Amino acid sequence: MRVVVPFSAARPKTRLGPVLDDSERRAFAFAMLSDVLSALRGAGHEPTVLATEPVDCDTAVRVDDRPLTRAVNDVLPDDEDDAVAIVMADLALATPDALDRLFAADGDLVLAPGRGGGTNALVVRDPEFAVDYHGASIRDHRAIAAEAGLEVVEVDSMRLATDVDEPADLVEVLLHGRGESRTWLREAGFEVATTDGRVTVERSE
Amino acid sequence: MRVVVPFSAARPKTRLGPVLDDSERRAFAFAMLSDVLSALRGAGHEPTVLATEPVDCDTAVRVDDRPLTRAVNDVLPDDEDDAVAIVMADLALATPDALDRLFAADGDLVLAPGRGGGTNALVVRDPEFAVDYHGASIRDHRAIAAEAGLEVVEVDSMRLATDVDEPADLVEVLLHGRGESRTWLREAGFEVATTDGRVTVERSE
Repeated sequence: MRVVVPFSAARPKTRLGPVLDDSERRAFAFAMLSDVLSALRGAGHEPTVLATEPVDCDTAVRVDDRPLTRAVNDVLPDDEDDAVAIVMADLALATPDALDRLFAADGDLVLAPGRGGGTNALVVRDPEFAVDYHGASIRDHRAIAAEAGLEVVEVDSMRLATDVDEPADLVEVLLHGRGESRTWLREAGFEVATTDGRVTVERSE
Repeated sequence: MRVVVPFSAARPKTRLGPVLDDSERRAFAFAMLSDVLSALRGAGHEPTVLATEPVDCDTAVRVDDRPLTRAVNDVLPDDEDDAVAIVMADLALATPDALDRLFAADGDLVLAPGRGGGTNALVVRDPEFAVDYHGASIRDHRAIAAEAGLEVVEVDSMRLATDVDEPADLVEVLLHGRGESRTWLREAGFEVATTDGRVTVERSE
């Protein structure tokens, strides 16, 4: 199976702007990418990074500066014998075990839903399928698959559902992360802060 | 295994106040409770509701008006031959499959983490363990178990990680729910609304 990790290299993670400046967001995005690549290798795969511009990382890089949906559709299977996994670069909680469940699931299409309607990872085994990452992509992907008569399986994983986009997501990395992303946040001064409702993060420097 | 579902019957789901009034929150909380009980029965268990006041529902009810932590600790195992599962009443996405993974996991303590540091479900097989739901309970539960030398297993499930507390959580019910909670929300006029970031809900009546 080919495994592709899309990565927005130019101005990553803009929604973390309230808590991280430009260069911090870039450093944190690379830490998360590194954790995802490590987890994929731990699951026995050699990923390719699909980046919007050349990036310096310890793996194969394919550069495509088109929008995400078009760049991803260009790497999906051309025939029935091919299979491609697309795994987002900000799944800082991903582990080999969680990814094994993704890769082991049967189905023409395997979906790992993300928080808030996203599709954080998928495995495509049928050339009829195409992605559409705009809007509530998990709903669109189900609809596209149904239209093509494909068998869809969903993987129920908190680790794969947790993409790190917003300040509230950082607490998940602190509580459940095991890799560079968690270390980076701790070294940047982030700690778990308890509140009346869900816990959040605070930063001390 | 005894299975206990704590339920706050008096003024449930206050953090949904921005989008639901008092009587709506109560009705929605009961719809979620019903979905959790159905999923537990689907997984082959006959749950007991641990409620803060008498409630009218189609299962055994134990009334205890003390705070959650004390009420739950009072139902945990007394000896090594006993096992108790505590499953929160607002896991509107829970399915028999997700719960099977919780019940099937080995370990003196099995934890299903919730979004934002919570502990949405757990299985206790050792009388040394006690819960503490204040603050970042998942971290506290890991620490309590480590202190007692217990073997801990965590279940990686988006469905069990999704407790429904805040308006942003409602979109998860619309996108991934299968039961009464989803029907209730749709009949109350809630729909998925796409935004620049994660999708959310909007209400039309």
